[in-house]
Amino acid sequence: MRILGIDPGYGRIGFGVIDKIGNTFKLIDFGVIETDKNADLNKRLLEIYEKMNELINKYNPDEAAVESLFFFKNVKTAIQVGEARGVILLTLQQAGLVIAEYTPYQVKQAITGYGRAEKGQIQRMLKTIFNLKKTPTPDDAADAIAIAFCHGNYRRF
Amino acid sequence: MRILGIDPGYGRIGFGVIDKIGNTFKLIDFGVIETDKNADLNKRLLEIYEKMNELINKYNPDEAAVESLFFFKNVKTAIQVGEARGVILLTLQQAGLVIAEYTPYQVKQAITGYGRAEKGQIQRMLKTIFNLKKTPTPDDAADAIAIAFCHGNYRRF
Repeated sequence: MRILGIDPGYGRIGFGVIDKIGNTFKLIDFGVIETDKNADLNKRLLEIYEKMNELINKYNPDEAAVESLFFFKNVKTAIQVGEARGVILLTLQQAGLVIAEYTPYQVKQAITGYGRAEKGQIQRMLKTIFNLKKTPTPDDAADAIAIAFCHGNYRRF
Repeated sequence: MRILGIDPGYGRIGFGVIDKIGNTFKLIDFGVIETDKNADLNKRLLEIYEKMNELINKYNPDEAAVESLFFFKNVKTAIQVGEARGVILLTLQQAGLVIAEYTPYQVKQAITGYGRAEKGQIQRMLKTIFNLKKTPTPDDAADAIAIAFCHGNYRRF
């Protein structure tokens, strides 16, 4: 089963693609979708829509896992991230994917057994789980891989 | 020029379609798009996407005006309304429409000259402006007409 993990945002969206084969996991690809920060916000929503569709077509995942975020500096930021998140969820829904959502706490718990684990610990565990030579970067992409793994791990039981 | 006014939401989206001919305004249609409250949130985003596209194809507006909202009971609600708003803005952007955004204060100011005007006063002004026999209902639709008028009025100067 192929899982697409997404760390949502307006300017930068992390993605991680993993395969779950039996009880083992394989990292297929990861990276970030970036939108033009000089473009107006509505054009950036269209950019997110188009780039998400390219990503889905390229990797053809079976299921998707998206981070739930409930903490923001202010309501204006929350609405904007919500707008980007809405467009991301729409593309996943249009592709007919199962969509699961996990909080950062659940993701950390799935990877380290501890919901308040630090970033460094998560990154070391990702290297171990996927048998990588170095830590996946940038952070948004590493977070997306972690979200995809979290989903695969919940799915295991 | 035809203007589509939108009062965004997850469960209920108000719309108002007006024509501005010279310095006069004509109300073409208004109503609400509703999504299935028993469906999961991602299916409702797809429903919003499809129904917004139907609306745009039916009325073929030149420009769109959407209410900006920055006050919410909690961040979770703000994110959800943001998600719906993101999908709405995407459909308007995909249709190539000019998209303007106005706060409730600006809308009230444009209609009554007073940014803190009460709902009843707005509704009476809408009847006068569009020469209607009765107040447009429900409230979400009346709000959307007011937003469309606000845009047409700003456009006048």
